Order: sequence, then C-alpha cells, then structure tokens
Amino acid sequence: MRNRVSIAIHGGAGVYPRDYFTPRLKARYEDALQRCLDRGWQVLSRGGSSLEAVERAVRALEDTPLFNAGRGSVLNELGKVECEAGIMNGDGAAGAVAGLSTVKNPIGLARRVLDDPDVVFVAGPGAERYADRFPKVKRVEADYFLTKTRQRQLAQAKAEKRVVLDNTKFGTVGAVARDRSGVLAAATSTGGLTNKVAGRVGDTPIIGAGTFAADGVCAVSCTGVGEVFIREAASHEVAARMRHGGRGLKAAVHEVVHDVLAPAGGVGGMIAVDHRGVLCLDFNSSSMYRAWRTSGRKPIARIFRRESPSPIRS
Amino acid sequence: MRNRVSIAIHGGAGVYPRDYFTPRLKARYEDALQRCLDRGWQVLSRGGSSLEAVERAVRALEDTPLFNAGRGSVLNELGKVECEAGIMNGDGAAGAVAGLSTVKNPIGLARRVLDDPDVVFVAGPGAERYADRFPKVKRVEADYFLTKTRQRQLAQAKAEKRVVLDNTKFGTVGAVARDRSGVLAAATSTGGLTNKVAGRVGDTPIIGAGTFAADGVCAVSCTGVGEVFIREAASHEVAARMRHGGRGLKAAVHEVVHDVLAPAGGVGGMIAVDHRGVLCLDFNSSSMYRAWRTSGRKPIARIFRRESPSPIRS
Repeated sequence: MRNRVSIAIHGGAGVYPRDYFTPRLKARYEDALQRCLDRGWQVLSRGGSSLEAVERAVRALEDTPLFNAGRGSVLNELGKVECEAGIMNGDGAAGAVAGLSTVKNPIGLARRVLDDPDVVFVAGPGAERYADRFPKVKRVEADYFLTKTRQRQLAQAKAEKRVVLDNTKFGTVGAVARDRSGVLAAATSTGGLTNKVAGRVGDTPIIGAGTFAADGVCAVSCTGVGEVFIREAASHEVAARMRHGGRGLKAAVHEVVHDVLAPAGGVGGMIAVDHRGVLCLDFNSSSMYRAWRTSGRKPIARIFRRESPSPIRS
Repeated sequence: MRNRVSIAIHGGAGVYPRDYFTPRLKARYEDALQRCLDRGWQVLSRGGSSLEAVERAVRALEDTPLFNAGRGSVLNELGKVECEAGIMNGDGAAGAVAGLSTVKNPIGLARRVLDDPDVVFVAGPGAERYADRFPKVKRVEADYFLTKTRQRQLAQAKAEKRVVLDNTKFGTVGAVARDRSGVLAAATSTGGLTNKVAGRVGDTPIIGAGTFAADGVCAVSCTGVGEVFIREAASHEVAARMRHGGRGLKAAVHEVVHDVLAPAGGVGGMIAVDHRGVLCLDFNSSSMYRAWRTSGRKPIARIFRRESPSPIRS
C-alpha cells in the first residue's frame, strides 16, 4: 500500500468512568470527532499533504468547545486563556507557539511559524506580536474563549486549591497523518491546565515532547500530564526506539505509554502513524477521545479501551 | 573509578577565526572559563551534588559579561533582553524558563521550577510573576543587562537586517557534571540571538533539545543554531543512541554533532558526561569556549579544536 493515506486524531485522554457518558453525551463526542476527522481526511483523499490534513483537523478540534483547545480552552490562575500549539512536518520543519490569548486558531499560527525559516518557537506577548504580521490569522476578543463550563471549572479548582488538567480529561487535541507521497505530519493544540500557573508551558508546543514527526519513521501527537511528557521527551522517544532500537510502531508506542510514562506519573496517551501509514492509538488513562481512518477502511471513533465495534454513523 | 567526579562547561560555540584572538583576549576568556569551572568543581570535590555544581558554574558564567547569558545577554528586535535557561537532574526532575528580563540569574529561577513538582516550564510575563514568589531570586533593572557591546551589536544587526547568534559566537553557556554518587545533571542558559523576534524561544530551555540528563546514561548541554537543535531533539538524541543504539558517549555525541546537526545547518556543539564520569566536548563550528576537569586530572580550558596542551594557569 505505497499510496495508503492515514489519519488519526485525539481530543484528550480522560479519567471519567464509563457510566459518566450517557448514550447521548457519547454520541455528541463521537459526532464531533467524526466531523473533525473528516476535515483532515478530505485533504488526504484529494491528494493533499499530511501537513495540511493535520492542521485542518486540529483547527476543527479547536473550534469545538467540547475540547480543551482554541474555543473551549481552560482558564489559568488569572482566569485567562493561554493557548499553545505545535506542528511538525516529517521533513523536519516545525512551528510552535505558547501563551496566546487572542489567536482564534493557535495551530494556524504555529503553521506560520513552521513556514518561517528563522524561528521554531515563539511564546508570550512576542507570539501575539508575531501574529500581527499575518492579517489572515484571525484574532478574537477574550470572551470568545470564555465558556461557562470553563469558568465554573476554574472557580471549583480555586476553591479546592487544585491545578487540574481540565476537570474531565487531560485536555489536548491532536492529529497525525501520512499522505499519498509518504510524508508524515503531527499537530497538537491545548488550553493546558485549569488554574495553571500563568506562563506555564506544557508538552504540546515542545517538539520531541508532545509533537514530533520524522519521515521514514513516525509522527506522534500526545495528550496527558505534560510535565512528565516533557521530561521523557515522549514523542521523540517513540521515534528513537524505532530508529535505534529496531522496534515497530506499536511496540515503541506501547513501551513509551505503559513502561516509561505510566510509572513516572505520565497519565495520558498518544496517537502515531508510521512511514507505511500504520496507525497506533494507545493510552494508560481510562479513556482517550479518538478517531482514525485509513485507505479502504471505514472511519472509527472511540472513547474507551474496549468497546463493541461501532463504525461512525454516516 | 566509581567515585569519579567530573564537570565540563561551555561558553558558546564560535565562528571567529583563530587570529581574532590576541594572546591577551584568549587569556581573558580562558581565565573566565577557569573561574566558572572552579565554582562547580568546588561543589563536586567537597561531595556536593551535580545539580548544585552545574547551577553554580552556570551562575558564574551568567555573571560574566563576556558570555551571552545573564549579564552580557544580547538584545532582541525591541532592544530588550529575553533570557532563557534550562536545568535537569538525572533523576528526571527538570526546570526551564524563557522570556526573562528582570531576573539576574535565569538558571537560579529554572532551579526553583525544577524543585516545583507541578511545573517544568514557565515562560514570558508569567515567568516574571513566578519569580515574585521567591524573595531570594535576585531581580535587576533593565540597564544591568545593557552592555555597550550588545547595544552596538544590535544597531549593527538592524542596519544589516540580520538576526545573529551574538556577533562573535553561538552564545550560550552550559555545564554538565557527575557527582560522587553517580548522579548526573545538565544546565544551560542564554540570551539567544541578537535582533531575534520578540518571544523567540531557542533550544536552551527545551528539555531534550538544549538540555537533558538521565542517570545511567548521560547529561548534555548544547550551544548552536537553536532551531535545528530543537527539530533534532539534539540532547535527547544523544541519550537515545546510547540507550537504544548501544553507542558509547563519544560515538553518540560525534554522530549527533557531525552527522545529524551539521548537515541540517545546526552549527554548534555540545558538552556531555556519561554515567562513569567520562566527558566529551565536541563541535562542528570553528571553536567552542570550553573547560573541563575530572578526578585526578588538571583542569583544562580550550577555544579551538587543535591547540598545544595548555593546562589552566593556577
């Protein structure tokens, strides 16, 4: 399958028990995942690049308030949104942004950084200033991000003096893809942690931690306790086990998720694709919002580990 | 040599030709390197931790205006200093800061972040706010950082419309060490690039890129074209080649510096120590300010690749 195209997306790893999800709520998440997956799939199926596909899918995830990225981002200790995002092409080009509060689609700005040969990572007020260069990078007022749910969650976290990764899940969104010419790409975006320290940067925009892609090897996007993913250089560790340890994608992902991250407190998961278009979605949390599709197969969406097969309704 | 202690420091990789250095200038750099190395060595030789040793050495390098970190940092496109630093202990604890303009010793704040179980990386105004928590983290006025040399360099870079890694070198400072109990540590600090985009973050505070340490494997601190070091996850790549590819320290460092970074435009170098205390200092630039010392040996300082042996004057 030299021309196989594949895409996988995630909407964060979760810690909620199965009975939290009424059939209606479950369907709502699955429908949202289907819609976002399809944005990326459309690009791949018409011969577009994996980079374009993962950006489109992540934009759609950012625009969905259900997920903790873009609209729907959680609030930091100051009651402000600080979004971050990272994107990488298998050829080595990469872009990352952090500390954004006016950019509607952080992944779109990360893509502009990727296209800039002089810089890989821009953070804080400088990132907002960098965004001013691009009239097409849409800006929004602070209240665009302020959803009632997130405000309630912040009040609750402050009352309990907790810093939490979203109240329902380790909220991050991401996508990985392989396109027709075999090029890989990964993209990740998040609002971070509810009640997080202002200025805190998680693994999402750290190339090699939350986001990594290398042609001929794999592309990876992570979700979980960011600090542990940074310390273990989680996504680069998957690539390293494949490149230097002779592992296949599934073994490498399994080892990193269960043998490296879990013992270190790195609750979460990751989605990955290898150079042949094989997909792998794995997590050590109780659930991970996810969906995937590959040439000749139907799209699938899942929340929990073991579920009776339920192809996405079309 | 189970109890061997070792330390290496760098003051940046350079591109200046050998004849730029008058004997007097060369001695000035070597003396400064000796003084900073000695700060770390004192900690190790009295049985202190490698973490304490690398922090002390980097603090001393930051306080030396000759080097592009702390006092002596270069100026960004707005004429401002934006310092960044990263520190990691071999047990996995890590701390990183970016976008600082009032903290005298960025590595000291990174160390406070390392000691905080909730966060690994804090950037921008949030990092300044985080510093407010610690009365012992010394703050300075902007003019502390503004040296005449750096202002002249910025004016020159602006006139030539260039973004440059210091005018004389890929300015970064760093240290790696192994202490008596075999624990490894790495620390890196920099002012970044002259005329850099405001908010630009380089490889220095990126765990796995400019700074990495893992007990039983190695500790690494890098200097060079940060964007390439980020894309290649340079310091984690050294550890990965040792862990998964069976390489020794010298082979792993050599491959990453010359076969991975150099072809990708990653001019620069790195210093590294392995679990036995073996040191390796390598670079693909014309020079790298560096010094090192290990149990039972005299300290050595070097700038260029081949020099007649010249132990540090004591």
